[in-house]
Amino acid sequence: MTTKVITAPKEWLLSKISSVTGNAVRIALWDGTQIVPPGITPVGTVRLKDWRCLARLALDPGLYFGEEYSAGRIDIEGDLPQLLTAVYPAVSGKRTAWFPKLISRWLEWTQDNTLSGSRRNIRTHYDIGTDFYRLWLDSQLVYTCAYFASPSETLEQAQVEKMDHVCRKVQLQQGDTVVEAGCGWGALALHMARHYGAKVKAFNISHEQIVYARARAAREGLAGQVEFIEDDYRSISGRYDVFVSVGMLEHVGLGHYKELGNTIHRCLKDSGRGFLHFIGRNRPMRFNPWIRKRIFPGAYPPSLRESLEVFEEHDFSVLDIENLRLHYARTLENWLERFERSAGKVAEMLGTNFVRAWRLYLAGSIAAFRGGTLQLFQIVFARATNNLIPWTRAHLYTDDDQQEQKWIAAMS
Amino acid sequence: MTTKVITAPKEWLLSKISSVTGNAVRIALWDGTQIVPPGITPVGTVRLKDWRCLARLALDPGLYFGEEYSAGRIDIEGDLPQLLTAVYPAVSGKRTAWFPKLISRWLEWTQDNTLSGSRRNIRTHYDIGTDFYRLWLDSQLVYTCAYFASPSETLEQAQVEKMDHVCRKVQLQQGDTVVEAGCGWGALALHMARHYGAKVKAFNISHEQIVYARARAAREGLAGQVEFIEDDYRSISGRYDVFVSVGMLEHVGLGHYKELGNTIHRCLKDSGRGFLHFIGRNRPMRFNPWIRKRIFPGAYPPSLRESLEVFEEHDFSVLDIENLRLHYARTLENWLERFERSAGKVAEMLGTNFVRAWRLYLAGSIAAFRGGTLQLFQIVFARATNNLIPWTRAHLYTDDDQQEQKWIAAMS
Repeated sequence: MTTKVITAPKEWLLSKISSVTGNAVRIALWDGTQIVPPGITPVGTVRLKDWRCLARLALDPGLYFGEEYSAGRIDIEGDLPQLLTAVYPAVSGKRTAWFPKLISRWLEWTQDNTLSGSRRNIRTHYDIGTDFYRLWLDSQLVYTCAYFASPSETLEQAQVEKMDHVCRKVQLQQGDTVVEAGCGWGALALHMARHYGAKVKAFNISHEQIVYARARAAREGLAGQVEFIEDDYRSISGRYDVFVSVGMLEHVGLGHYKELGNTIHRCLKDSGRGFLHFIGRNRPMRFNPWIRKRIFPGAYPPSLRESLEVFEEHDFSVLDIENLRLHYARTLENWLERFERSAGKVAEMLGTNFVRAWRLYLAGSIAAFRGGTLQLFQIVFARATNNLIPWTRAHLYTDDDQQEQKWIAAMS
Repeated sequence: MTTKVITAPKEWLLSKISSVTGNAVRIALWDGTQIVPPGITPVGTVRLKDWRCLARLALDPGLYFGEEYSAGRIDIEGDLPQLLTAVYPAVSGKRTAWFPKLISRWLEWTQDNTLSGSRRNIRTHYDIGTDFYRLWLDSQLVYTCAYFASPSETLEQAQVEKMDHVCRKVQLQQGDTVVEAGCGWGALALHMARHYGAKVKAFNISHEQIVYARARAAREGLAGQVEFIEDDYRSISGRYDVFVSVGMLEHVGLGHYKELGNTIHRCLKDSGRGFLHFIGRNRPMRFNPWIRKRIFPGAYPPSLRESLEVFEEHDFSVLDIENLRLHYARTLENWLERFERSAGKVAEMLGTNFVRAWRLYLAGSIAAFRGGTLQLFQIVFARATNNLIPWTRAHLYTDDDQQEQKWIAAMS
């Protein structure tokens, strides 16, 4: 492998890039030029197609790696999640230049989660089309971290177990009233109704998801027990035994936690149990700007400390927090594998650039959960004065699980 | 029951007090005057002995209730923990007057947890004398929240189970090196050595406790496995598989969490597991000023959010948080019961006022944990990049517990 003589401006741009990639990968240019990390075997090769791509990467790698990869002006040789895992620690927190800062501010400003902003942000992602998500999610379309009680389980099993894990955490009982904030395609709400006899009101501002969830409820004879409401969490009214929210806090935005806390305070009975499940961080850091621009507008994964703002104002008592980071890495591995199997169909539906963008998003998420830059927190909480809380957490693990096995079998 | 005509200044003082007690109790004065809560049965009677006591209570109830009760100028009729549970919600957060604020500032200023300040603060409480603590703690002198796997267990059993709960949470293995920050009389360090084959370095700045712990280690043939070091957590050196701290964070002080975080970062191996157990809050609030003046100088129970400052700076990943609030109420009920049985001996050793003060402290703590104004948090953490973390928490609950039963039997 010959390394060409590098001209000065190219060298400067390349050195900027390789300082960011942390020398874990080989960088190859359109003209045969290569930067090979010294002394170690690179985890893969990043191949740049032209000058513009090189310049943009040097200007803002966080934003333009995704842009150029999606457009096919960057190619990757090697395992994408592995390569991104290697690069991630080096990229994290390197955005101090003026241009990335400007981009970040601009995104923040244009993507604020007001009532109308939230609707726009959520629809960008979740209204791509149920037919698309059906190609690579599990059969119940659960688009959040699964719970693999043992690492060998299938995604189908692990999503059912996740729903039961949540139901056990809130001690769900026959006849309980539940409000769900951000219900996706309705799998959890319907699971609570069918298997626990709960009455559920489930809120979501994704139109496509609500339409699908209503149809499913009707088809399965659960429309009398589960009401799907196309509205914002801030509009929730009534008082409930249980509040649950799985995968919504990421979309609430740091400036709106007080509104979420007020909603929960308003709608949870004195004896009520609450549950929040969300992607978070060990310390405050925004999502990558490309993710914010193209995948999850308006999203922010709070540090665990930041997330607790939701609870302090109204004196909620945090009872239990579990970090399921490695479960999300495994969930995403399943999703990416299924996604790749359907890549041809996705390309027909949404184009090649879309396939490349979503491949990068899924692989990058695997890297972040594996590498510990993203976390998955489940928080159980109750009012400070509620003494009807479980004595220990043994009930989550030692119950007779025959019933559970039956559900898993029925769903698989 | 006749209610005398109330003179104007007395009325004013009484109205100040009853606004604080929230009308849950009957207040009776030296001259027969009574304030009886309207419409409800009072949980008990607070009997004031003289004018000075009434005036002080009106000036700063948070401070002077304890002072006057200890001095015998306030008497309580009725169940003390129950009465305090009823009064607590009303008292919390009512200190806005200038005098209580001044007292609070003065305590803060004189009780800062510098290296020498910490030593002074800790010795005030923990060096009262092992003979005193032996009268009412369990046989191993575990002076922190126990873990009652079922509510019917004895304190002896529950303290052993707590130690095993901690050991399981940090996945303690034969040959592991452990550093413990704040080790009390050494029970946990010795438990880890004897039952798990760990090598432990245990730090404590209480001289009495270290002397006792060293003697116990020698007596039990564990001096080769456990080293008790009379020094501050900030002086810890070396690198360890496990960091544990049970009941120390309350004494670290909000301004020193960064120092604790630095210590942990310095001493935890890359594959290490960390554990923090402490009294906390749902939202920021200081200890009652009397507790700070007479019982725990320099102590502060952080809100869960505040406590996470320890971890953010060095990117530690919180894996598991459990709130054992009701376990601490039960632990304290056991302690108070034993304390009352030995009240005569304590009075001989330390005087009647001391007995009254400690009765109030124990009963007040029961009230705070029952009523939800204090929490007990256990946090398991690891480095962000450590992927050798347990897949689920089932191992805490489903292990063969024969070994555990044997230890409990041996210790009872």
